[in-house]
Amino acid sequence: MSSGVMSPNLALNEEVETRRAAGESIVHLGFGESRLPPAPELVASLKSSAARNAYGPVAGRAGPRSAVAGYFTRRRLPTGAEQVAVAPGSKAVLMALQLVVPGDLIIPIPSWNTYAPQAKLAGKQVIGVPIPAECGGVPDPALLRDALRTARSAGHDPKILVLTLPDNPTGTCASPDVVRSLCAIAEDEDLLVVSDEIYRDLVHDPATTPWCGPAELLPERTVVTTGLSKSLALGGWRIGAVRFPVGEFDSRLRARFLAAASEMWSTLAAPMQQVAEYAFAEPAELRCHLASSARLHGAVARAVHGLLVEAGATCRPPTAGFYVYPDFEPLRERLFSRGVTDSASLQRYLLDEYGIAVLAGHLLGDAPGALRFKAATAMLYGDTPDQQWEALSSAEPLRLPHISDLLDRIGYSFRKLAS
Amino acid sequence: MSSGVMSPNLALNEEVETRRAAGESIVHLGFGESRLPPAPELVASLKSSAARNAYGPVAGRAGPRSAVAGYFTRRRLPTGAEQVAVAPGSKAVLMALQLVVPGDLIIPIPSWNTYAPQAKLAGKQVIGVPIPAECGGVPDPALLRDALRTARSAGHDPKILVLTLPDNPTGTCASPDVVRSLCAIAEDEDLLVVSDEIYRDLVHDPATTPWCGPAELLPERTVVTTGLSKSLALGGWRIGAVRFPVGEFDSRLRARFLAAASEMWSTLAAPMQQVAEYAFAEPAELRCHLASSARLHGAVARAVHGLLVEAGATCRPPTAGFYVYPDFEPLRERLFSRGVTDSASLQRYLLDEYGIAVLAGHLLGDAPGALRFKAATAMLYGDTPDQQWEALSSAEPLRLPHISDLLDRIGYSFRKLAS
Repeated sequence: MSSGVMSPNLALNEEVETRRAAGESIVHLGFGESRLPPAPELVASLKSSAARNAYGPVAGRAGPRSAVAGYFTRRRLPTGAEQVAVAPGSKAVLMALQLVVPGDLIIPIPSWNTYAPQAKLAGKQVIGVPIPAECGGVPDPALLRDALRTARSAGHDPKILVLTLPDNPTGTCASPDVVRSLCAIAEDEDLLVVSDEIYRDLVHDPATTPWCGPAELLPERTVVTTGLSKSLALGGWRIGAVRFPVGEFDSRLRARFLAAASEMWSTLAAPMQQVAEYAFAEPAELRCHLASSARLHGAVARAVHGLLVEAGATCRPPTAGFYVYPDFEPLRERLFSRGVTDSASLQRYLLDEYGIAVLAGHLLGDAPGALRFKAATAMLYGDTPDQQWEALSSAEPLRLPHISDLLDRIGYSFRKLAS
Repeated sequence: MSSGVMSPNLALNEEVETRRAAGESIVHLGFGESRLPPAPELVASLKSSAARNAYGPVAGRAGPRSAVAGYFTRRRLPTGAEQVAVAPGSKAVLMALQLVVPGDLIIPIPSWNTYAPQAKLAGKQVIGVPIPAECGGVPDPALLRDALRTARSAGHDPKILVLTLPDNPTGTCASPDVVRSLCAIAEDEDLLVVSDEIYRDLVHDPATTPWCGPAELLPERTVVTTGLSKSLALGGWRIGAVRFPVGEFDSRLRARFLAAASEMWSTLAAPMQQVAEYAFAEPAELRCHLASSARLHGAVARAVHGLLVEAGATCRPPTAGFYVYPDFEPLRERLFSRGVTDSASLQRYLLDEYGIAVLAGHLLGDAPGALRFKAATAMLYGDTPDQQWEALSSAEPLRLPHISDLLDRIGYSFRKLAS
C-alpha cells in the first residue's frame, strides 16, 4: 500500500521546477538526472524506428535482447539472449522483481529512495543495514549476518539482497573484497542478490577502479539490472534491462518476472527497443560519448566533493556516477546555531538560504538526526544543449564560466553554512 | 504473487509468431492488436520530439495533461489538467490503481485477461460477476448485489468495480440503462468505479450507439482510464492516460496513485508525451484516420460475426472495437465428436486443425466448460502497410482479396468445425 508520498527525488525536482518558474534562482543538486543532450546517433536511432507500432514480445524483440546479452558478455558475464529482457526503465524491473520474489528486502542504508517504497507496495518488510565506512551501495559485511538474525527473530523473512554497484547516493563503488564477503554471506544465507548496476559505465577512471560484480561470483543467484538513463543521459526515454541468473533460479524466476511484466507494462515501447538494440551494442561513437560523460561527471563530482571537504564536512571521495554524500557532523555545533539540527532542517536551510537543492539523508533511509544529504552533480553542465556539449568536449570543464560560476556559488554557500 | 503464467493473449501471440516463423500458416484472431500503420502525423510527432531526454513530472508535462483534459471535456466530462496523468500504457495505470486502492476487485465475467492477474499481484481477491445477455464489459446488474453480499460473507472486501466500456472481449457497449443501474449500486455499496474506456473511440457507428459513462453519473467515485493503443493502433508505443475523480476521492487517490507511479515507472517517456499531447488534442487529420479505423474494424468484426452465426454459434453483434465472443453451445454434441468439450480443447482444435488462433474463454475468467472464445479481428487487414492502408481507405474492405481470402478461410473453418 502506498503512503501517498511521492518519490522524494521526483517530488523535489517538481518543487525546484515550480520555484524556478516563479523566478527563484536555484542550484539543483537534488535530482539524479544526467542533464546532458542525447548523442545525435541515439536521436537518429529513435527517429529511424518511429514507424514501429506493434507490441512484440514481452521480454523484448530478439535484436535488443541479443544486444543486451552482448553488453553483459563483454563485462565478464557470458549471457544468452534468452536470459535477458528489456523494460520501460530499470525501476519497473525492480518493482516487478519485488512483486514476484517472495520474502523481505535487505538494502544498504542510505540507498536509492525507491527500493523501500517499492517493497512497501509489494507488501514486504525492509531490513536496512548501514554501509561500511569506505563505500556505499552495500550493507557493511560485518553487520549483515547480525541484521539477518535480528530480522528473522522479529518474524521477517530476509530473502532479497539489493546492492547498488556503483552506488547512488555515495558515488562510490564497493571493492571486490567487500563484494566477495557479501556474496559468501548471500550464498550461506540463501539470499537472492539483486545487483543494480545502472551506474556501471560511469566509473570515472575504470583503469584505477577494480570491479567485481556479484553475478561473476554467484551466477546462479544474482539478477543484474541496468538501463540507459544514467550512462547515456536518457532518463526521459525509460529504457531498462535485466539479466537473469543461469541454472537453479533461472527459468522459474524469469518466467514469473515475465508473467508480471506482461500484466504490468506489456513490453518496452517498440521504438525504444530499437534504441536499446543500437545502444547496448556499444558502437564506437557511443563509447566515446560515454567516456566523455564519465570524465565530465568525475571532474564535477570531485570538485563538489572538494568544496564540501574544504567547508569542513567529511565525505567519501566519489569514484563513479554523479553523487556525493557529505556528512556535516563535524560542524554540528555551528549548524545548531542556525537552527539546523537534522537532515530535514539541513535540506530546508540550504534551499531557503542559499537556493541549493539537495536530498536529505533521511529520505534515503539514513538516520534523521544525521547531518547528511545527497548532492547530485550532473545538472551543473548548463541550461542549454550548447553549454552541455561544450562541457562534454572541454578538457577543462571546471573552467567554463557557466560551470565555475555554479561551483563558486556552491562553495560559497557551504563555507557560509559552516562559518 | 505471480503464478509464472504469462498474460495469455501475449503468450498466444508469441506462440503464433513462433509457429509462423517455422512456416505454419495461421490466421491470428488471438491478440487484440490493431494491426494498422500509425498515422503519418503521429510518426512525425514522435520524430520531432526525439531529442527530448529529460524525465519531467511524474504525471506528465502540462501540455499532454491539458490535451488529455480537453479530450475528456469534449466527452461530457469537464476536466482540469490537474485531474489527469499520462503513463506508459493504461495497463500500468490499472496496475498502480490496484496497488494503491484498498479492497478487493469486482470484474465482469468474461473480461480482459489482465484485471485478475493484476489483482493477484496486488494481493487482492477477485469477485467475478457474469455479464448480462445483451452486452459485455459489465456485471449483470441483477446479479451484482448478491455477488457483493456473498463476497462479504466470505470475508472479502469488494471495493473496486471494473467496467470495460466498450467491452473487450465481446465487442459490445453497455447501454446507458445498464450503466445507470450499476452506478446506483456502486454508490449505494460505496464502490470505486474504474471505467476502462480504451475502446471508447472505436464505436463503429456512434450515431446509433448511445453512450453514457459512469464518470458522468458518479463524478466523485469514477476513475477513467484510456490510451492510444487501440484507437490509433499504437500498442507498441505504450501511451495511456487516466482521469481522476473530482471531490471526495480526488486528492488523496491521485496523490497515492502518483506516489506509486513515481516508484513504478517515473514518467511516460518524454517523446511519447509529445505524441500524447498531439493525439489527445484530436486534430482533424487524426479524427479522420480514427473514423476510417472504426469503420474498418466494424465491417470486419461484423463479417466474422456473420460467419460465426452462420456456422451455428450464438454471438452478441459487435458494435465497438474489434472483438467477437461466440458461444458454440448449440453445437456441443457435434463438437464432442471431435474431442472438443471445453474452451481449452476448442482453442486447441481450431489452432491445430485449421490454423485459426483464438483465445479460449476460460482465459478470460469464463467457465472452462463453456464453448466460448474471443476472436480479435483487427489483424486481418494485411501483412504489409500497403495492404493495411488499402483496407483503411477502401469503401468495401471486405472485397479486398487479402481480406476476403482470410474471411473465406475463417468461414470455411467454422462451418467445417460445425459440420
